[in-house]
Amino acid sequence: MAEFSLIESIRQRCAHLRDDVVLGIGDDAAVVAVPPDCELAVCTDTLVAGVHFPRDTTAADIGWKSLAVNLSDLAAMGATPAWALLALTLPTADTGFVEGFADGFAALAAEHGVSLIGGDTTSGPLTITVTVHGFVPKGRALRRDGARVGDTVWVSGTLGDAAAALRERDSNGDISAESHASLRARLDRPQPRVDLGILLREFASSCIDISDGLLADLGHVATASGVGIEIDVLRLPASPALLDRVPMEQRHALQLAGGDDYELAFTVAPERTSLLQQAVARNAIPITLVGRVVADSGVRALDAEGRVLELPRAGWEHFS
Amino acid sequence: MAEFSLIESIRQRCAHLRDDVVLGIGDDAAVVAVPPDCELAVCTDTLVAGVHFPRDTTAADIGWKSLAVNLSDLAAMGATPAWALLALTLPTADTGFVEGFADGFAALAAEHGVSLIGGDTTSGPLTITVTVHGFVPKGRALRRDGARVGDTVWVSGTLGDAAAALRERDSNGDISAESHASLRARLDRPQPRVDLGILLREFASSCIDISDGLLADLGHVATASGVGIEIDVLRLPASPALLDRVPMEQRHALQLAGGDDYELAFTVAPERTSLLQQAVARNAIPITLVGRVVADSGVRALDAEGRVLELPRAGWEHFS
Repeated sequence: MAEFSLIESIRQRCAHLRDDVVLGIGDDAAVVAVPPDCELAVCTDTLVAGVHFPRDTTAADIGWKSLAVNLSDLAAMGATPAWALLALTLPTADTGFVEGFADGFAALAAEHGVSLIGGDTTSGPLTITVTVHGFVPKGRALRRDGARVGDTVWVSGTLGDAAAALRERDSNGDISAESHASLRARLDRPQPRVDLGILLREFASSCIDISDGLLADLGHVATASGVGIEIDVLRLPASPALLDRVPMEQRHALQLAGGDDYELAFTVAPERTSLLQQAVARNAIPITLVGRVVADSGVRALDAEGRVLELPRAGWEHFS
Repeated sequence: MAEFSLIESIRQRCAHLRDDVVLGIGDDAAVVAVPPDCELAVCTDTLVAGVHFPRDTTAADIGWKSLAVNLSDLAAMGATPAWALLALTLPTADTGFVEGFADGFAALAAEHGVSLIGGDTTSGPLTITVTVHGFVPKGRALRRDGARVGDTVWVSGTLGDAAAALRERDSNGDISAESHASLRARLDRPQPRVDLGILLREFASSCIDISDGLLADLGHVATASGVGIEIDVLRLPASPALLDRVPMEQRHALQLAGGDDYELAFTVAPERTSLLQQAVARNAIPITLVGRVVADSGVRALDAEGRVLELPRAGWEHFS
C-alpha cells in the first residue's frame, strides 16, 4: 500500500476544509495560518496495540480513540481544535482495517471541525501517533500551575467506567450485558470535553485531563501549583453502569486511579462557582464538585468521616 | 522509566529557549506563538527500526536522523525550523539508549535552534515519530506544483552515498575503509539543507526533498506541476567515496533511485540561475544543474548521447 493511500483515504473522509489550511496533504509539509491574537496549543500522543487499547478493539474505535486522547489534551488547555497529523505504523496493508480506522478517526474529526493536514504511514507493529493543534486567545490557555488554596475542585462526567470495562474484559465477567457495553463504550469511544475546556477559560484557575487517573493527574496540578488537594470520595461521580456492576470499595479505586477517563479535572475560585454552574447548565455539560485546594502538599482522598482513605493495595497494583 | 524522564532528558539537552514558546514541556499541551506575517509549515515522519535505519545504528545517530528527516521536509518548503515534538516507543527503559538518542537529537536541534516542546514515550517496538514546525513568510512556501516548461533542474550536495552505504553493509563488502565510513555518515547523519531551502524562496519555482530517490521525487514534482523532467545522468553529483567504490552503472542506479539522500531537488526559471549561483556561492552551498523541465510528462534519465537510460532491472529491485 502506497504511503499516501491511507492518509488520502482518511483525508477524503474529512470533509472539513478549513480556510486556514493554505496547503494540505501532498507536499513535503502542510502550510497553515494561525488566527491573529491566538496562540497555538500543540500536543502528541501515541497508542500502542495491547498497551493503550485491547487487541480486540475495532479499527474504527482505534481511529476514534487515537484522535480523542489528543483532543482531550487540547480541551484541558482550553483550546479550540484545528488540525491533526497522523503517523500510522501497520503490520500489514490491510484495507479493511485502514478504512475502518479512517471512519472512526474522521467521525470524531468531523464533530470538532478538525482537518487532517499531514501524516506518514510505515510498516511495523501497530502504533498510532497523532499530533493535534488548537487555538487559544493570547495568554488565556488553561494551565496546571494556577490552583490556589481555597479553590474548589471539580471533575466532568463520570469516572472509572473505562477501567471497569478493562477489568471485566480481563476477568471473564459477564460482558454480554448492556451495562458492560456502556462501560466498554467509555473505553473505546471517549468523548473529549472540548466545549467544557473552552468555557473553562472564563472560570478555571487550573485544568488537566484525567487520562492517568484522578489522583495521579491532580498530583500534577498540586505539584505545579505548590498546593495540596483533598478529594471527598463519596462525591465522585459514577455512571449507573458502574454503580450497578462494581462494589463500592473497588469502585473508588477505579474512580481514583483507574485511568483512561478523558474527563477534565479543574479548580475554580469559590466566588466564580455560581457563574460556572449557570454556564455549564446552559450548555448541558455535567460537572461535579469533588474537593478543595489546601495548603498541605499532596493529594488525599477522604472518606465520609473525613479520614484519609487507604485504598486496597491490590487495587493499586491492578490498575497502576 | 516514567513518561517524562526521557523527554525531560532531551529537553535539558536542548538549551535553545525560544521567546515564542509560551509554555513548553510539562502541561497537557505546549503553547507557542507564530510570528505575525508568517505561516506555519508542519510535517511528521516516522522511523521504524530495521526499516528506516539498520538495527546496528547507534542511539545518537537514530536521534539525529529522526529529527534530520523532518527538518529536510521543512527545508523543502523553505521554512525556518522552530519547534519539534517527539513520540518515542521503546522496547525497554534503557537509560544508555535514551541518553545517546537525546545527545544525537539535541545536537541537530541546537544547530538549527529547534526547541523540543512536547512528546510522548510509550512501551513497544522501537519506533520514533517526530513532528516539526517551521515559519515561512506568508504565501512564500516552496511547493511541488510550480515547475514550468523551460525551467532548469538542480540538486544539492551529492547523491547515492546513503544507498551505497546500505548496499555495502548488506553485501559483506570491505566496510572497514575510511571511504565506507564517509558513505555511512551520509546514511546515519544526514544534513538537512535548511539554509538552502530558505534561500530558494527567492529563486525556485518548485522544490522537494529527495528521500525516496531522485526519479521518484521528481516524479511528484512533474505530476503536481503538469510537466515532464529530463535528467542528464552524467551531470549527477557524486562524492569521491562513491566514485571510488561503486562502478558507473550501479552508481547511476543509486543516484537516481537509491533514496535516503535528504538533498533538495528544485526547479529555477532560466533567467534566475545566475543570481541563484551567486547566492549559493556566497553561502558555500553546493548545487548542480542536472536537467530541464519539458512538456512531455514523466521523468526520464538520459545518457551522454541523450538516449533514455534503461536502468538495470536488478538495480531497481535491489533499491526499490
